[in-house]
Amino acid sequence: MNVKITGTGSYIPKILKKNNDFTNHEFYNVDGSKVESDNESVISKLKEITGINERRYASDNLNSSDLGYLAAEKAIEDSGIDKETIDYIILAHNFGDVKSTSDQSDMLPCLAARVKHLLKIKIPKCVAYDILFGCPGWVEGMIQANSFIKSGIAKKCLVIGAETLSRVIDPHDRDSMIYSDGAGATVIELIDNEDGGILSHESASYTHDEVYHLFFGCSNNKSLEDDTRFIKMYGRKIYEFALSNVPSAMKTCLDNSGYDIKDVKKILIHQANEKMDEAIVNRFYRLYKTPVPEGVMPMSIHKLGNSSVATVPTLLDLIKNNHMEGHEIKKGDIVIFASVGAGMHINAITYKY
Amino acid sequence: MNVKITGTGSYIPKILKKNNDFTNHEFYNVDGSKVESDNESVISKLKEITGINERRYASDNLNSSDLGYLAAEKAIEDSGIDKETIDYIILAHNFGDVKSTSDQSDMLPCLAARVKHLLKIKIPKCVAYDILFGCPGWVEGMIQANSFIKSGIAKKCLVIGAETLSRVIDPHDRDSMIYSDGAGATVIELIDNEDGGILSHESASYTHDEVYHLFFGCSNNKSLEDDTRFIKMYGRKIYEFALSNVPSAMKTCLDNSGYDIKDVKKILIHQANEKMDEAIVNRFYRLYKTPVPEGVMPMSIHKLGNSSVATVPTLLDLIKNNHMEGHEIKKGDIVIFASVGAGMHINAITYKY
Repeated sequence: MNVKITGTGSYIPKILKKNNDFTNHEFYNVDGSKVESDNESVISKLKEITGINERRYASDNLNSSDLGYLAAEKAIEDSGIDKETIDYIILAHNFGDVKSTSDQSDMLPCLAARVKHLLKIKIPKCVAYDILFGCPGWVEGMIQANSFIKSGIAKKCLVIGAETLSRVIDPHDRDSMIYSDGAGATVIELIDNEDGGILSHESASYTHDEVYHLFFGCSNNKSLEDDTRFIKMYGRKIYEFALSNVPSAMKTCLDNSGYDIKDVKKILIHQANEKMDEAIVNRFYRLYKTPVPEGVMPMSIHKLGNSSVATVPTLLDLIKNNHMEGHEIKKGDIVIFASVGAGMHINAITYKY
Repeated sequence: MNVKITGTGSYIPKILKKNNDFTNHEFYNVDGSKVESDNESVISKLKEITGINERRYASDNLNSSDLGYLAAEKAIEDSGIDKETIDYIILAHNFGDVKSTSDQSDMLPCLAARVKHLLKIKIPKCVAYDILFGCPGWVEGMIQANSFIKSGIAKKCLVIGAETLSRVIDPHDRDSMIYSDGAGATVIELIDNEDGGILSHESASYTHDEVYHLFFGCSNNKSLEDDTRFIKMYGRKIYEFALSNVPSAMKTCLDNSGYDIKDVKKILIHQANEKMDEAIVNRFYRLYKTPVPEGVMPMSIHKLGNSSVATVPTLLDLIKNNHMEGHEIKKGDIVIFASVGAGMHINAITYKY
């Protein structure tokens, strides 16, 4: 019984926000003091660490569920399936639909139900729910879909990651430059006559000391009178946490697949921060005493920023559609999907194409 | 392979809000006009239809995740398991943590991670995620946990429903009197040496015409200057939808269990509205041309109102602890759990105790 990805789709939002669009921002530190460096230095340092040159924001008229729908439509078309045969729509996000004019999260009804509505799927048996699991939400949705298929309650699932982080960022926080909007989607199915698919997976939630490494907090600009909260993070703590725990989770996952480190063709890792991602992958290979193969880790962060749950499925879709120069995934290739984010949650999937 | 509930817990919030506490509210219709009837008549009509005499609100210092934690702690104690052996914490809600002083939903990190933190569970392998599925979220969490156990990726799961609807109601909308706060939790486990447990389940999402029967909308009081949104519903449409679709879903579920309508000892249905729940159960029995047995449908709505995802697990916990006079569930009893809510989602479980 093999569970395989039969379609991918993504939606790249239209608004291009370049690094120099932040030149006139007033940045404050967490303690409310003004950031002393000039903005050019702040931006150049951000670029050096994260790799981000530009990012995408959704148009004002589109919310997360709309982005999810646009990605899902492409994934369904790519898979060639009849949309009325989908058993589950699993949508990962972390903030619901946040209108461009509001700071409230709207999740009533859940976003998966909205996507099903927009897709005009009629069959009631297609169950549409949302999962909240930090940035690793799409990977976890894939693991849940795999379980539903393995246990016999589903054959075809649509798994979506969609987020509009541009609506929940503090313009007075340098970290706001990291975040972006986007959506990616996959159709995964029970396939009888092919080998491969999801070979192994690994998930973990570190909540004892790490639960508030990413959190919802007030602006760094203490002179603001409202108490609107935004996405906030302790970047250094996350960096150290990720380096300590993600490589070993990836190793457990790969080892459980029965494949060797030399078989790994691509690692599609959550696009959080280029330096952090490189350090994770370096440490992963060091666990096998093996050098990191050139080109094993495609990166979309330079142009797309960190769009949370959307990064991994978007990256996969870009590669499958030959939009990532020098990168391809061929039949038989072993690919690792891995993510880390708010919770703190970590997960990984070993997949054979 | 049997998947059984081994522990239940619930948390009944401390603030008692009686019907006559609404006497001085200014109620408006959806079109912004003032409700013409006097409040005594409005309250008396609400009581007649919904059965609600009083409801509970969480204290200002407690959020949904805190209520979920308090219920979960009891469920774990009741089950007697070592909390470090839990494989999944699945928390159903629809609005995240909404502080008493804010209209923003906070789900970063997800509420299940917060509960795991409060429970001081250390093992990373205990995966904590949130599910959004309208009021049927707890029932759906049970179905997901069952699938994880059946597919071999879990043995013990903690499934929680927690909500603070008092934080998202429009005080100028009569429907605000329906909603309440609460949390219920269950531990479910793979049990080798007993029969029974989850025998069958059924889920459906009606999103084509029904997706916005429950939605997030502005106050009925159009003179308010802010654009804060609240839980809103088309009550009549929901009533008709539920009557048309819930009984047949329950019948499919029961029929798939192999048990007969005469075997059903209790129906624990989402406490949405007493008249609607009675009509659903009447129609369910009519499908079997069987009279409704007395006492088959325990109701907690009179004292607890509609606490969304929390109603069914709370009702179960109250019965198991002999807090529902005249109701008990004994070993061997067939129980149906059923729910309906925003999405519109419907689900049911046939369970043998």
